Amino acid sequence: MNDPMDPAIRARAVQAARGSAPFDLLLAGGTVVDVATGQLRQADIGIVGSLIASVHPTGTREDAAAVEDVSGRFLAPAFIDSHLHYESSLMAPADYAATVVPAGTTTCVWDPHELANVLGLPGVRWAIEASRDLPLRTLIAAPSCVPSAPGLEVAGAEFGAAEMAEMLSWPEVSGVAEVMDMPGVLRGTPHMTGIVGAGLASGKNVNGHARGLRDADLQAYAAAGVTSDHEIVDADDFLQKLQAGLTVELRGSHDYVLPGALTALAALPMLPPNLVLCTDDIFPDELMEKGGLRDTIARVIARGVNPIAAIRLATLHAAMRLKRDDLGLVAPGRQADIVVLTELTSVAVERVYTAGRLVARDGKLLAPPRRTDGPRGTVKLGPQPIEAFMPRANGVGDGRAQLRKIVGARFGKWGQVEVAVRNGFAVLPPGHACITIIHRHGRTAAKPQTCITDGWGEPRGAIATTISHDSHNLLVLGRDPADMQAAANALIACGGGMAVAREGKVVALLPLPIAGLLAETPPEVTAANFARLRAAADQVIDWQQPFRIFRGLTGLSLACNAGPHPTDLGLTDGGTGEIFDPAEVLPA
Amino acid sequence: MNDPMDPAIRARAVQAARGSAPFDLLLAGGTVVDVATGQLRQADIGIVGSLIASVHPTGTREDAAAVEDVSGRFLAPAFIDSHLHYESSLMAPADYAATVVPAGTTTCVWDPHELANVLGLPGVRWAIEASRDLPLRTLIAAPSCVPSAPGLEVAGAEFGAAEMAEMLSWPEVSGVAEVMDMPGVLRGTPHMTGIVGAGLASGKNVNGHARGLRDADLQAYAAAGVTSDHEIVDADDFLQKLQAGLTVELRGSHDYVLPGALTALAALPMLPPNLVLCTDDIFPDELMEKGGLRDTIARVIARGVNPIAAIRLATLHAAMRLKRDDLGLVAPGRQADIVVLTELTSVAVERVYTAGRLVARDGKLLAPPRRTDGPRGTVKLGPQPIEAFMPRANGVGDGRAQLRKIVGARFGKWGQVEVAVRNGFAVLPPGHACITIIHRHGRTAAKPQTCITDGWGEPRGAIATTISHDSHNLLVLGRDPADMQAAANALIACGGGMAVAREGKVVALLPLPIAGLLAETPPEVTAANFARLRAAADQVIDWQQPFRIFRGLTGLSLACNAGPHPTDLGLTDGGTGEIFDPAEVLPA
Repeated sequence: MNDPMDPAIRARAVQAARGSAPFDLLLAGGTVVDVATGQLRQADIGIVGSLIASVHPTGTREDAAAVEDVSGRFLAPAFIDSHLHYESSLMAPADYAATVVPAGTTTCVWDPHELANVLGLPGVRWAIEASRDLPLRTLIAAPSCVPSAPGLEVAGAEFGAAEMAEMLSWPEVSGVAEVMDMPGVLRGTPHMTGIVGAGLASGKNVNGHARGLRDADLQAYAAAGVTSDHEIVDADDFLQKLQAGLTVELRGSHDYVLPGALTALAALPMLPPNLVLCTDDIFPDELMEKGGLRDTIARVIARGVNPIAAIRLATLHAAMRLKRDDLGLVAPGRQADIVVLTELTSVAVERVYTAGRLVARDGKLLAPPRRTDGPRGTVKLGPQPIEAFMPRANGVGDGRAQLRKIVGARFGKWGQVEVAVRNGFAVLPPGHACITIIHRHGRTAAKPQTCITDGWGEPRGAIATTISHDSHNLLVLGRDPADMQAAANALIACGGGMAVAREGKVVALLPLPIAGLLAETPPEVTAANFARLRAAADQVIDWQQPFRIFRGLTGLSLACNAGPHPTDLGLTDGGTGEIFDPAEVLPA
Repeated sequence: MNDPMDPAIRARAVQAARGSAPFDLLLAGGTVVDVATGQLRQADIGIVGSLIASVHPTGTREDAAAVEDVSGRFLAPAFIDSHLHYESSLMAPADYAATVVPAGTTTCVWDPHELANVLGLPGVRWAIEASRDLPLRTLIAAPSCVPSAPGLEVAGAEFGAAEMAEMLSWPEVSGVAEVMDMPGVLRGTPHMTGIVGAGLASGKNVNGHARGLRDADLQAYAAAGVTSDHEIVDADDFLQKLQAGLTVELRGSHDYVLPGALTALAALPMLPPNLVLCTDDIFPDELMEKGGLRDTIARVIARGVNPIAAIRLATLHAAMRLKRDDLGLVAPGRQADIVVLTELTSVAVERVYTAGRLVARDGKLLAPPRRTDGPRGTVKLGPQPIEAFMPRANGVGDGRAQLRKIVGARFGKWGQVEVAVRNGFAVLPPGHACITIIHRHGRTAAKPQTCITDGWGEPRGAIATTISHDSHNLLVLGRDPADMQAAANALIACGGGMAVAREGKVVALLPLPIAGLLAETPPEVTAANFARLRAAADQVIDWQQPFRIFRGLTGLSLACNAGPHPTDLGLTDGGTGEIFDPAEVLPA
């Protein structure tokens, strides 16, 4: 479905194109980047309302209410980000738009997966409402895995086929969001079959998340009706997925994947039409600094892809994937979404037009975006006692006990640890830390779950977060229960976010009052707060990996994956479907 | 909207792809033509029901209910014909399918424009019903110009925005068919704006017919929301339309266009994704001989286009244009529409699979296609008296008179002729012929319109046809009124078709009882009848042009075009909107 359009605008565009009426705006003297033919050509662009009315030889028309001189500039279709989560940037739609639109993104596909896990359908409805009338055209993908691991965790809501069908009936929804429950799809569970089936019945896109799927499993996943993937890990994975006919949403957030994938691309005889670009997850400071998809395109070009081809991936290919023939080209009858570039190879964005309006110039939005109050009060917990953060050993008063533990910080494995027990509480051995998860959605009695891990060294404080994939219960990592309590209670008091505590006191706080996920501060403040929080976290935890602390921390409870994952229900394993009480005493 | 699909088939396909269940059919040992990546690769194809379940390395699976050895063969996606009229081949859907499916076409977009002009909405409904359950997947384009020249002719029906919206609400309808009323679109008439607007509101394709539109008019036509064109006349036209973002449906029926267009294509830096192939209008004998789109693809390859690229145009590009992600690729999750080629460059089709079933082999369908009785009795006229075919001079009994005439046979011009008048009837001067048109739809009192032309020499007989674009009234061309009467009354007696008469007797008759447009005979009989009719016509008329007699003859009354066109209302001019009585006596 294309953008709704006032027929009067289209009628006026036809007459203006013919020369029977003036344009509203003429972009004169530039070079059009024609991503259909691959040509650069001198042409002027006549705009009427939101539409491109005409692309015609330079200087042949002068009748326009306004004329902008774009000589020496390249005029490309504005960028389409094929898959992302605003939540990863901690920004509400208005702030996200203010950050990426000046860098040339005017259309994106947002999977508000995290909001949905906290708020359910009202969260998706808010995502739609808060995205209206922004200079960023937001197409919503309907979250498919709420929660990611049914039965192993309690999120704020549960979506089945009925909820999926309802969301798909909304015109703002462009398809089913990344289908993450790969085992469910491959086993053909009624739950996932129903959700994918609702997508297929709607005729809208069924988007994928095919992490690590190759060979027979990849074929099966595609046979199920899923038609895209952004979880590329290397060149072979990239090629297999293109060959399987999936639309590959090549991801700028994972730079290490680009060299291999783009080398493989260069070896292909043709540019596959089923290749697009996306950003997926970008931290707020990085988004502020680099501008999202623009940076991805520039890096693709820097790796040797022809600039027009790189821009084609992020424009025309994306529009075709979205089944939109009003986007993705500088051509008559299409939305006047145009980026003005001072240089092609570096993708240097000077001006951005969304639907015919100049919305950004020199890196800034020209008008403040419309803001929509967000849902607050989603951390439904009172202050927690210190015992919530102390590991227990069931049935042992004082003595020693053998408990389960998580071995390693990321992609952890199951292990055991012998502990001393004092008054029913385990004493943490050297080199170990605690993780506490507390249900925060008010849907169950909030019994804290505290388990032991050896993957994070000995924290010199605690970090708490209400971003904790995918159920976003309150998660706290630390060693000293007083630190953990201080960090947790600070978040409970402020409605969610992230906090770092040391010596019993909060030393850094990032409030995320909207659903405990998104900030209400301006992007630059959010980015600064986040940077400050990360610096504080670095003082507390020594763990260093290619992934930063927060990617590891917020992924700890991703219960759909195999291996040990703490959730509000206990220590779970997505591979086996088991749930254990972390306080269960094992045979020595 | 993709093909409807039994969820049980998809569920079985997933398990078969994983290796947990056998395939229904395994195509083993072949080379897959991967039109996404442009690669040829050795792979086996596992099929379950109508679906491709898996494309996997050769020899890695053997568990299938049936295994077909395709070693030494190329396995390409079956062909998609992006625009055509079955009526041009005089064939009902079953016969059309029997003719093109063995040559590899398994999907086509049919604009049943001629049926609609005769039968109205019931004609479009019949087109849908008669296309069901055939090995050819027929997507219907909703006729947009019924009649082509409102006010200048009376067809069997009239379609406005309401009829268009109704057709677009049917799931079998994929979009608005070629929008031929270019002046209406450019002037923004409420009639055409309403029809195009219904298409835009539906989210389905709005297909174009942009004959001769260039520069400002082309920009205006695209700005109106039309998104394709097949009326390419030369290389510049081709490039302008690609650059305007239209999907160019490059036409195999007009071979003289290919060299220029393909030379221009070769000079482009990239293969435009907005380029597809179509056949449009093919005579029955030519269709029998060459197989439709297969022949077009082979000619594109012969002109230097890479074979995989040429096949891509007719498969993946077409599927993207149709917003279908279940077609156009040999890949898991897509319809198992596959052609087995013994040679790539000559596009030598050996076997054809539609939705997983082997439907054709060695040039023949394997099972007779389902036939649907067609609407008959559409020539609503009694036998005509000889006076119907004699030109008159109003108000002149005997003497001389100056009358209007059509100068030239094709793309005629206005002229005058002085004639002798006897008993109120004009005596044809040497070198002239008559054209008579009689309304045949029973919607007006059928007053015959007889005019004079100098474009056809002196016919030695008469030709009558109920195929007469676009209103398909009864048209007769001849010199001797007795010949004209004989040919016309033969068609009135048999329910429509084409006839040639000499010396007062019918010498060749092609009955087209379905709507006076389509044959009920098997394709080879229809082709033979048509060839015989053409041979007879060649004995009657000497006119020779790059276009054969029938293309000229059936286009005589195409009243939407500028210049003189006889219709059931008189001598009309689509350029000025005027209607003249052909018997009007002009000042000398």
